Amino acid sequence: MANKLSIISFSGDFDKLTAVFTLATGAAAVGYEVNLFFTFWGLDAIKKKQGRSFVGGTALTKLFGFFMGGLKAAPVSRLNFWGASASIFRSLMRRNNVATPEELLEAAKALSVNFYACEMAMHILGLTKEDFIPEVKDVLGVASFLKIADGGQTLFI
Amino acid sequence: MANKLSIISFSGDFDKLTAVFTLATGAAAVGYEVNLFFTFWGLDAIKKKQGRSFVGGTALTKLFGFFMGGLKAAPVSRLNFWGASASIFRSLMRRNNVATPEELLEAAKALSVNFYACEMAMHILGLTKEDFIPEVKDVLGVASFLKIADGGQTLFI
Amino acid sequence: MANKLSIISFSGDFDKLTAVFTLATGAAAVGYEVNLFFTFWGLDAIKKKQGRSFVGGTALTKLFGFFMGGLKAAPVSRLNFWGASASIFRSLMRRNNVATPEELLEAAKALSVNFYACEMAMHILGLTKEDFIPEVKDVLGVASFLKIADGGQTLFI
Repeated sequence: MANKLSIISFSGDFDKLTAVFTLATGAAAVGYEVNLFFTFWGLDAIKKKQGRSFVGGTALTKLFGFFMGGLKAAPVSRLNFWGASASIFRSLMRRNNVATPEELLEAAKALSVNFYACEMAMHILGLTKEDFIPEVKDVLGVASFLKIADGGQTLFI
Repeated sequence: MANKLSIISFSGDFDKLTAVFTLATGAAAVGYEVNLFFTFWGLDAIKKKQGRSFVGGTALTKLFGFFMGGLKAAPVSRLNFWGASASIFRSLMRRNNVATPEELLEAAKALSVNFYACEMAMHILGLTKEDFIPEVKDVLGVASFLKIADGGQTLFI
Repeated sequence: MANKLSIISFSGDFDKLTAVFTLATGAAAVGYEVNLFFTFWGLDAIKKKQGRSFVGGTALTKLFGFFMGGLKAAPVSRLNFWGASASIFRSLMRRNNVATPEELLEAAKALSVNFYACEMAMHILGLTKEDFIPEVKDVLGVASFLKIADGGQTLFI
């Protein structure tokens, strides 16, 4: 049986997204099939248009899109210090030759990690497949994701 | 082998509980056995008496019960805006024909999802089985839960 | 096949660490092989020098070490009340004969739970194996952890 790792990437936090992409690339590098299912805040990490932009179908969802701000603006889940923390972590990563989340995302693409987006969360946040990076293979509901994840390890982050 | 999904429902956040109930109903709808094991903040979602009420054995636990306030008062884990966020999400859900957590909880009951409560967390918070909705089948410790979850996928949310 | 439970212990929160150690000791007590893989904030729980100390390789990492402050200073993930919450929970635990996280950590050691530390997070935070309790068996990357966790249940907390 092939090894398989599937992650429900729910969080939009800098540190948790770092964990998602580290696990994904680490597993893919040793031959695992890796499936990332982005939902809720996690969807922010795979938006085509990064930075604080008003992506979303209505005024309210546009506002949420603005406040979330994409991977580069992702806050740290603890000791965030009004956003300074992510910059500090990024500089620690660079100094210690550890990949940043952005670099890990690129590595994940290169390692053929499978990207999926959660249909229901997209409905709530007014997002369409066109709002995401082209590597997003498909928009899935729970049942389809469970079938893809079947027989492997599944994590919720 | 029957498909099985078990979730340790630890969080009391609106968005994470939405994820729990979406996964639970989505899996149950395609024939999975689904086991929800509520612990810590998650216990708040299955209290019989919803709303800000003083449920708990002592003054301190009553106070926690009051601050938690049940599923309808659940805060959003990020960008909470002093509680406004959950109302915004609820209105986005209704507008986009997506079920709210309360509706998903009812669906989970209808789909025969198994509800369990964590014995140790109940001890800490001074709660008894009578404080919960009648669908809670049993009060379990870790060992019993692991036996129930054995052979399926298990998530911690 | 032996039963196996592996936990990626990412969080540094009092309540989530309580969940980690409760699951670990509960599973080990009924004969499971238990592997705890500490990363990011979770590393704080297994530092040799507990309390607010300046552990870390550089000024910045020392500062993070100070703010984190070890298991005894771990905040509660919600309703933290500027740190009062953890003391309240500890007193509720003692009053109700439930083990505190510190006691559970000792129990985990006694039950031969396997402790591992995440190599990449240690690089970022400027930590070395000597900064941790001697029970930490090894420093691992993702691939080695996945091999150890293979064939069991894996949770991300």
